Formats: sequence, structure tokens, C-alpha cells
Amino acid sequence: MSKIRIGIIGAGRIGKIHADNLRRFANAEIVGVSDLFAGPELEAWAAERGIGLLTKDSGDLVNHPGIDALYICSSTDTHVPLIKQAAQAGKHIFCEKPISMDIGQTEEAIEAVRKAGVKLQIGFNRRFDHNFKRVREHVLGGTIGEPHIVKITSRDPSPPPKEYIKVSGGLFMDMAIHDFDMARYLSGSEVTEVYAQGSVLVDSAFAEYGDVDTAITTLKFENGALGVIDNSRKAVYGYDQRVEVFGSKGSVAVANDFPNTAVVSTADGIASDKPLHFFLERYTEAYLDETRMFLDSLANGTPLPVDGYDGLQAERIALAAKLSLRLGRPVKISELHDLRAQMAQ
Amino acid sequence: MSKIRIGIIGAGRIGKIHADNLRRFANAEIVGVSDLFAGPELEAWAAERGIGLLTKDSGDLVNHPGIDALYICSSTDTHVPLIKQAAQAGKHIFCEKPISMDIGQTEEAIEAVRKAGVKLQIGFNRRFDHNFKRVREHVLGGTIGEPHIVKITSRDPSPPPKEYIKVSGGLFMDMAIHDFDMARYLSGSEVTEVYAQGSVLVDSAFAEYGDVDTAITTLKFENGALGVIDNSRKAVYGYDQRVEVFGSKGSVAVANDFPNTAVVSTADGIASDKPLHFFLERYTEAYLDETRMFLDSLANGTPLPVDGYDGLQAERIALAAKLSLRLGRPVKISELHDLRAQMAQ
Amino acid sequence: MSKIRIGIIGAGRIGKIHADNLRRFANAEIVGVSDLFAGPELEAWAAERGIGLLTKDSGDLVNHPGIDALYICSSTDTHVPLIKQAAQAGKHIFCEKPISMDIGQTEEAIEAVRKAGVKLQIGFNRRFDHNFKRVREHVLGGTIGEPHIVKITSRDPSPPPKEYIKVSGGLFMDMAIHDFDMARYLSGSEVTEVYAQGSVLVDSAFAEYGDVDTAITTLKFENGALGVIDNSRKAVYGYDQRVEVFGSKGSVAVANDFPNTAVVSTADGIASDKPLHFFLERYTEAYLDETRMFLDSLANGTPLPVDGYDGLQAERIALAAKLSLRLGRPVKISELHDLRAQMAQ
Amino acid sequence: MSKIRIGIIGAGRIGKIHADNLRRFANAEIVGVSDLFAGPELEAWAAERGIGLLTKDSGDLVNHPGIDALYICSSTDTHVPLIKQAAQAGKHIFCEKPISMDIGQTEEAIEAVRKAGVKLQIGFNRRFDHNFKRVREHVLGGTIGEPHIVKITSRDPSPPPKEYIKVSGGLFMDMAIHDFDMARYLSGSEVTEVYAQGSVLVDSAFAEYGDVDTAITTLKFENGALGVIDNSRKAVYGYDQRVEVFGSKGSVAVANDFPNTAVVSTADGIASDKPLHFFLERYTEAYLDETRMFLDSLANGTPLPVDGYDGLQAERIALAAKLSLRLGRPVKISELHDLRAQMAQ
Repeated sequence: MSKIRIGIIGAGRIGKIHADNLRRFANAEIVGVSDLFAGPELEAWAAERGIGLLTKDSGDLVNHPGIDALYICSSTDTHVPLIKQAAQAGKHIFCEKPISMDIGQTEEAIEAVRKAGVKLQIGFNRRFDHNFKRVREHVLGGTIGEPHIVKITSRDPSPPPKEYIKVSGGLFMDMAIHDFDMARYLSGSEVTEVYAQGSVLVDSAFAEYGDVDTAITTLKFENGALGVIDNSRKAVYGYDQRVEVFGSKGSVAVANDFPNTAVVSTADGIASDKPLHFFLERYTEAYLDETRMFLDSLANGTPLPVDGYDGLQAERIALAAKLSLRLGRPVKISELHDLRAQMAQ
Repeated sequence: MSKIRIGIIGAGRIGKIHADNLRRFANAEIVGVSDLFAGPELEAWAAERGIGLLTKDSGDLVNHPGIDALYICSSTDTHVPLIKQAAQAGKHIFCEKPISMDIGQTEEAIEAVRKAGVKLQIGFNRRFDHNFKRVREHVLGGTIGEPHIVKITSRDPSPPPKEYIKVSGGLFMDMAIHDFDMARYLSGSEVTEVYAQGSVLVDSAFAEYGDVDTAITTLKFENGALGVIDNSRKAVYGYDQRVEVFGSKGSVAVANDFPNTAVVSTADGIASDKPLHFFLERYTEAYLDETRMFLDSLANGTPLPVDGYDGLQAERIALAAKLSLRLGRPVKISELHDLRAQMAQ
Repeated sequence: MSKIRIGIIGAGRIGKIHADNLRRFANAEIVGVSDLFAGPELEAWAAERGIGLLTKDSGDLVNHPGIDALYICSSTDTHVPLIKQAAQAGKHIFCEKPISMDIGQTEEAIEAVRKAGVKLQIGFNRRFDHNFKRVREHVLGGTIGEPHIVKITSRDPSPPPKEYIKVSGGLFMDMAIHDFDMARYLSGSEVTEVYAQGSVLVDSAFAEYGDVDTAITTLKFENGALGVIDNSRKAVYGYDQRVEVFGSKGSVAVANDFPNTAVVSTADGIASDKPLHFFLERYTEAYLDETRMFLDSLANGTPLPVDGYDGLQAERIALAAKLSLRLGRPVKISELHDLRAQMAQ
Repeated sequence: MSKIRIGIIGAGRIGKIHADNLRRFANAEIVGVSDLFAGPELEAWAAERGIGLLTKDSGDLVNHPGIDALYICSSTDTHVPLIKQAAQAGKHIFCEKPISMDIGQTEEAIEAVRKAGVKLQIGFNRRFDHNFKRVREHVLGGTIGEPHIVKITSRDPSPPPKEYIKVSGGLFMDMAIHDFDMARYLSGSEVTEVYAQGSVLVDSAFAEYGDVDTAITTLKFENGALGVIDNSRKAVYGYDQRVEVFGSKGSVAVANDFPNTAVVSTADGIASDKPLHFFLERYTEAYLDETRMFLDSLANGTPLPVDGYDGLQAERIALAAKLSLRLGRPVKISELHDLRAQMAQ
């Protein structure tokens, strides 16, 4: 059995997670890592893991003849050019979300991938979460009948730093995009219309950049179901990621994960620990599983669990939400083309 | 201590509940009951309870010199005329929700009450629910800081009969009106804008009458918070009444009530019984407590827990929701006056 | 329909509860109440409830020709003589637990009842609890197969006053007796052997009277199942009453009841309110239901849900537990006769 | 930083788990593996993991100059001789539980370790479980005050094969030994007395070997607390591992772990998935953490989290439980010496 040879572009927090996960698969091998800020610290990190090639130039990986697939974990603005280069070089691609903040560019990237005949998986890690997968299984399996209402709660423990807010693309493109993908994943149906309400209640820094920190987004699905997502940039009790799908035969709901099941009863009341703090703790296994399925797809030709089209659709919903908030009215996905044209004028 | 003498107008299901609850208070006495369909069965019912006066004519109670207060439990279309008559006769009033389906008429009824100087309590029974009261206490007590998001789930176990759907006033005025009151009650703030999405997914009978059976309504509050209510006419697993208020310092959420806490673990999985079936089971104590507080207000002058204005505001939100669904856009409460004028043309 | 005419002997806390519960049944009427300490306060209480006869002499009720049944709610030492008198007078009897602290006397009381052909229900109120009833239904219905292990947790929120401890009969006869009845009720099998461990960990007052405040009692059942009860006189978080029955096909477990379902999530963790404080709050409905079934049995001849034999068996287990603790070894129920004879010498 | 060089004796299920866990630590290296049944399959397994040395002879590892520490994962009867050999060879030791089924031999092994000055960690993996650790933290931290009652539920999903039952040492030495260790770990106190009840309710094969499959064991602790453990060899709903410690200031309890948090509500009731199936699923992270702490102790001199003495004490309690069941009376740990002497005659 030959190993799948991997290059990782961008060795920030998420790039390192993918590296450590890849090391746990006997059929994968990390050939090289590129990072703009490669230095002594990263060299030590790579050495400990037996990674032979460390470079500042992503081109060294893209053009490396001994690499089969690339993990694109660099900043969002680099995704589209890297996808195009990688596709042209015949490399399979795992790319973090979002592909880009511009639907036109995302479409170009997807087209490049299609032409090259390579595989492109998008890092919608939550699809691999044990809880959300179980919801999806119940929905697809018919346990709850026809879906009528999809509810998603998605709250971060604390807002990102100001400099990140500025370039984040806004709450809908940066944060809720996971939830938009989840809405499609759980309902098994496409979103057709979006209405978003948003407020700045957490930190006025969001207002400075025309962003919001609290939002409720309602969705209409092709199959007639309705959806609602509530987002906050700051849940002081920790990462809050829950969903419920309600349908003609019942509902299925998942709660948060907790570090333990300890319940303390005292004269003051009943108490337990907060949920797992943030995405790294909550989605540890999900990150491992998305890589497992990517490797499986490369090794055995199984279908990708989440591809470029999924990335594109989530971005479309995010854009519709942004426009809805700006226009103060519901926005149809089918309107996006015209609305973008108008705005471009 | 003299007893508060009560007349009950309308001896249907809810009128009978109020009667049995009143009998548990030592300081209340049911003087008479009126019902259009008074007959042998109702006579037996009244006799068992030692109720001396049974009549088909509500006027016999309204004009009865030995009656201090009236419970109006007859059909919605009779509420406004009865409130006016009762007020004129100097009787205190407990009236089931909604006061009417026409905001103008509701305003007239409230004005009549104000002029007469009598008390008017509206039957928003859920305010007295042990769970929702606890949420309110936490919100008012500052446990969760400033409210940012108010979420209400409100689903009935099964749709009403077709003949009721026809005259119900629609999902927003008939069913969600409780939730609109709850939104005000829990947030401690007024609703300023409403956007409603609705679908017919449960029963096409709703479509026949221009109604929906599934809805998601988003709210904006004066204090900047956002709200969302999801409604369904049919939750096959039973009455589903949950709320969550999320704020700057945390969240408080309440789940359904269950007939028991039994958890069965077998080779098939973990199972427990469904929630309490419907409002009669769920709100048994709440119905008792709303009467307790009404009697307290009459006996001791304590403030009414929910008054005519609360009834009116909930109707305004319901009307805004109806109009939002019809117009396909968010509707401000401040627009209602103009929109009603336009529609009246 | 003629009403069942009731006399209540002992108008302490529990006697008053039975009185108010009886008032809610249309087919019952409280004819009189006796209490050694009858005075102005009790007179007012009786007057409010329209109870015509208030006396210090229980004989006035026992011998009252217009009384069908007696509730014996006076102190434990009066139970046996009152049962004998009532039986002789042809009155049906509802008697609080325990019948007595002496098995010989209890047997005499039961024999008197049998001879007189009257009914005797014992106040094992927990059998009527919604949770425990559901466990029993599952066990009898076969949901969990053959019972293997019965676990009962039974802890009071705070110890009784010192003067009560002195005359209480000790933890096993006073407190755990409910659990011994529950063990029989849930398992559907008789207890054959008892081993008890006990400690004084809560309050040294218990040691003064040769009593314990913390105990673990293990049981063997006729059907081969094992049982365990843990008791404490002081659970600072409130009344703790849970059971689990584990069997060949699974388990069924019930948790405590809570005043509400509110869950508060803050930076400090997840919190909720303590369980219902004590038996009056926890078993409100159970007290009502035991009276309902007693009245049903008198009116319609349905079987008593818990009778004198049940009272006797629970006392036997309690005695075995006491002896086990004293002897430091397991004690068989079948040994009790001999052990009592030895001790009598 | 030099790596800790490890040899693994016994490459069955648990040996392989330790191997894969060791591979995740950058400061550990598996030098060799021995297994009586080493063959092509095991060779492939070792090759995939880059393990250079595979042998049938454990001596090849014990006497290997390039090995610092040994994992003893072979059958229980080999533990004591291997510990003695390893100690003599100056190797640190991680040994699966129990050390042996004979207290005298266990004492000899511990003495050999002490003399050699090597480290010996026992595989009481449950101490590293996230739930049980949290209970211990609360107990040691004083959250619940003085411990009064320690309750442990420990049930396997299905009984072992008949041939294993025969050599297992019986329920107390094979299965409950984990719970005996847990009792010491959670209470922070030594067990002084044991009373065990047991039945054969699951499978008559247990009776054939003088064993039981269902047991309730009560414990007395030095600090006055009481304890109770209930064991079953067959919980059809899966691995059931829960504990509760109740004390003067409250209680702390932990529930099972589940594969997901999905709750399904349908017309049939509320349902969720069974707990994690067995120890491999439940204690995945605990196995990793016990190795982490073993390596830490070797690398940094931190204290061992569980040592030979802990192994010995758990065996003493297990022996007391066995004798209690046989003798039908409570057995003190301090009696063990005499009882063993009597039995040896």
C-alpha cells in the first residue's frame, strides 16, 4: 500500500491540527509544510514530527512532484489562487472555509477544480461532529418524517480580536457560514430565501466595521421547511452549538458536549461544568474524521463528504443574509445575481 | 372576611376549570354560571358544586347585584360587548385571551374598563407557569445580564378541528398570541418590529382559510434584543413549550414538563415518556395561580399580574405578524395604524 | 349518590393535609375532627372548611353513628388502640405509618380489622408518587425483565428535632420504613434477609438515643434479586428520593422532582434549582391520590392499594435492619420470631 | 531530549491499545513487543507501526539493555514473575490489574519493586476517566464536605466467555476490583470492612465455578463513611459506570458517557442512544492519560498516580468480599491475615 503524500500550506493553529491528525493515519505521510512565517519554532515543530520539508513558499509544495494532495490552511484571501494553482498542478485539495468572500471567485475556483479533475473538500468540520451526524442520520432515515423546522444555535465564547473582525468578512461569511452549511446538511434541502436581523450588543467594534455580533437569520428551504439560526459572538458560558430538526413525525435535537457529566448538588443548588470551551475542544474528533474521509476518498474513490459546491452554496446564503440585513427585507437566493449586478454598478 | 362573589360566563372547558379552581379558595364564592347551552348536564355539574344560579342569559350575571367579578369564558366575539357591559355594571373582570381580533375594539373595551375603574385581568395563563416565572425572575434579577436573544418554542400536539380553524383568527392571533405575550413578559421590553414566515405543512385545511400551520416569527425589541418564535400546530410527541433568554452574562432556558422522571434503558436504547400532553395538563397549576392573583388583587389591592394593555399589545404583535406574512416584509408596530387605515380603504 | 362520611383523628400537619384533600372529592364529607390540642386556632380552621364537629376526644368520632371511615393521624403510640376501637365500631380506617413499633401489636391490630371486616389502608404515600408508580408499571409490565437489583436512595433535607429523634423508633422504623415498603412495591417480591450498616455522621444527638443518621441496608428478595437502600437524615440540597430497578432486560430509574426546569448557564457554570424541598412538596399529588383510592375502595369495592399486611411487612424489615445493625450480621426475616423471643428473655 | 524506550509484553487487545497510545507521545519509543503467539499477523501490525523487535520471549525485552520500561499486558498469572524479573533488571513497570490473585504473591512483587527502586504503575485506568477525576477533585476540594456515602454502579454489557469465567478469579477479583480501587480513590480513605451479597441471575455458568454474576458489596471506610457497589455481568443497554459521593455539604454524581447527545421525540416517546458500549469506548481517553502520567513520572519524576500499594489494597478488599460472600457475614480487612491462615490449614 502506497501512502498518500500530503503538503500543508499554512501552519497556523488549524494547519497544525490537520498535521497531527494526518500523523495518526497509517496511509498518510506529510511531505512538507509551507508557512510565510516559517522560523525556528516551526522548524522544531516539524522536526519533532519528522516532516522533512519546511518552506516559506507554498509553490514548493504546489509544484512538488512527490505530493498528492494539499491542505490549504492559509488566510482566506489566498484560497482561490492556491486552489487554481493546485488544480493545475493536479493535486487534490482540502481547503478551509470559506473558499473566498466573493462568489464569482469561488465559482472560478470550483471550475478550475472541475477542469483539472482533482478532488476538493471544504473544511466544514461540523458535518463530522458525532452529534450533528446523528441528527442527519435520523432526518435521512425518516425518524422525524418530513422536516418542517430546522433550528440552529451557534454562539462563540468570545469575539475575535478587532484586527480579525476587520478582515473577517462579517458575522455571516465568517461565523454563520458553518450554520448555513449545517442547515443544508441537516435538512437535505436547498435554501431559497433568507431574512436576517442583526444587532451590535456585544462589542461596538463590530459596528465600526459595519458588522453585527448578534443575529437571527430565518431561512426558507426548497422543500417548504423553515429554518432559523441564532448567532452571538459571545456566550460567556462557552461554545454553544446545538441543533434541532422538527418534522411531521417528531423532532431530533442535540445539546452541547461537556468535559464531564459531574453534577454537584449543594445547599446552593445543582451545578455542573460549562460546555467544552470552543471549536478546538468541541470538534477534536470531527477534525480527525474529516481528514479520515478525505483520505478515504483519495485512497478508495469514495465520494467526498463535502465539496466545492457545498462551499459555494454556503457562501451564497451568507451573501443573501448580508444583503437582507442591509436592505431590511428577505432576499431570495435567486435574486443574488441581479443584486450583485446592481451593487457592482 | 367577606367572600368575593363570582359569576362565570361560559361553562365550556375553560370556564369549568376556572370554576373548580375558584372552589379551592376560601375567600371566593361562585354565585352563578351562565351558558348558552345550559341544560341537564350543566345543571348536574352546578348542583354538585353547590352553585345556586344557572342561566342561559349572561345578563343575569352582569346585572346581578350580588356579584363582584365576572369570568368571561365565552367565545371571543362576545368578549368586547361583555367587557363593556360588565365595566358599566361595576364588575371586575377576568377575560380569556384574546380580548378581540380587532385592535380598535380591544381599545374600546380597555377604555370602558378604565372609565369604570374596574379591574381587568387577561387570561395569559402561561405567565403563571413555574418554569416561565423562573426565567422571568432570572432575567429581571440580572442573572443573565442584558437580554440579547429571546427564543420561544411553542407547538401544539395536534391541530384544532376545521370549524375552529375557520373562526380562530389564524395561527398568530389564536396560538402565537400567547408567545407574543411571553416575549414581552420574558424580555421586559416592548416589541417594535415583526417578521413572520409561515407554511402549510401539517394540514391543507389551514390553506383553505388563508392560514398557516407552521411559522417562524422574528422580533425586535425596544432594548435592542432580538427574538424568535417557532410555532407548529402539530408536534406528534405532545405539547412543546420551551423558552430561552440569552444575554450578556449567560442564558436561562426551560424545558418541557413530563408526567414522570422515569428513564428506561434497554437493548433498544434509552427511553422516557412524552411531555405533558397539552395545555390543560401543562398549565394546571398556572390556571390556579392566575385566579389566586386575580382574587388577591380584588381582595388586597395588589397589582394585576396581566391587564388589558398586555392583551392589546399581544394583539398588536399578532396583527403585525399577519401583515408581515401577507406583505412578505418586516412590519413595525408603529406602522400598524397606517397599514390598518390603508387596508380599511 | 350518598357521600362517604369521614372523621379525622389528629389535626396536625398530616391530618390537615388529608382534610384539604378530602374536600376536593365530591363524594366525601368531613363530619368531624378530633385533636388533643383543639383550641381557637383549630376552631377557625374547621369553620373555614365548614367542618361541624371539633372535639378533643377521639371517641366522639369513633363512636359517631354518622361516620363511615376514620383517618388516624395521631401519634404512633395511639394507632393500635384506635385501630382496634374503630374496627370494633365498624369504621373503615386510613392509618398513617407505622402501625406501631411493635410487631406483636401490629399483628393484633390487623387481626382486629380482619375480624371486624372493615378496610384498613396504610399511609405509604410514596406508592402513589407519579415516578415510583411508573417504575412499578415498567417492572410489572416486563419492560426490564426479571428484576436483579433494586436501588433506593432516600435522604431527608434535615434531621428532625431532638425530642422527635428520641421517640421516633429510630432511622429504620421511622424513615427507612417507607423505603422497605418501596422495595416490596417495586420488586413485587418479599424481602427475606436484611443487612444494615449505620453511622452517626450528621448529628451526635442520634448516638445519644442509640440511633444512626446514615445507613446502607442491603436486602435479599424471595425471587433472588438483591436490594440496597441508602439513607441519610441530612441532604443539604433537599429531599432526595430516587429509585432504580435493574433487570435482565434493562433498567428503569427515576430522578427527583424539581420546582422548575430552568437551567442557567453563566461564566461560572451550569446551574439549576434544588429538588422539591421535602415530602410535603414532593408528594402533594401522592397524598391526594392515596385518598382518592381509599375513597374508591369504600365507594366501589376496588381493592385497597396498600393494606395492613403491607404495614406489617415493612415493620418486619425495619426490625430486621435494627437487629442486623445491633448484631453486626445479616438477619433473616424468618429469624425474627426467635430473635424477639430471645430478646424478650 | 532522549526518548523513553518501552517494551510491551503481551500484544493482546490491551497491549495493542497501549502501543497505539504510546505512539502518540513524542517522548516515547516502542523498542520491542513480545507475545507468546507472535506470528505473521502481529508482524504486520508491528511493521506498520515501525516496531523493530517482535519476539515470543518476554525475556528478550526484560533483559534488553535499550529498554527503560515495560508494559506487562500478559495474562494475570505471569504478572508477579515478570514484575520480579523486570525489577531485578532495573526496568520501570506498568502492569495491568490485578497484580495477582494471591495477596502474598502481590506483596512479594511489591517488595521486589521497592528493593530495586523502580517504578510500578498499576492499570487502574478508571482513575483517569474525565468523570471520575472530576468527582475526586470535588471530594478533595471540599465541595461536598465530609464524605458520608460512596455509591458505585458498575455493570458490564455482557458476561465474558465461559473459559474466561473459570480463570477470572471471580467477580470480585476480576471485575469489582476496579470498583474497590475507585472506592479508595473517590473517598480518599481506606476500606476497613466489607460485606458482600451475590447471586447467579445472569448465567448459570457462573455457579459452576463458584462465582456470582450479580453482587452488592457494602464497605466501611476508616473515616466513618459507608460505601456500596452494585455489580452485574450483564447490562443489556451497555456499559454502566456511574458513581456518587454524598457528604455533609452535598453530593457529586457522574452519569455514563454517550456516543452523542441526540434526543428523539416522537409519538412513541423520547429516545436516545445507549451509553458507550464497553470499556474500550468509554475509557479511550483514560487509557491515553494513564500512559501520559506514567511517562511523565519517568521523565520528570512526578509521583505515580497509582502504584503497587493501590493494587494490593484493591486485592485485599476483593478477597474480603469473596470471604464475606462465602462466610455470610461482614469481613474486616484486619481479619484477612487470620482468615487466610485458617483457610491455608
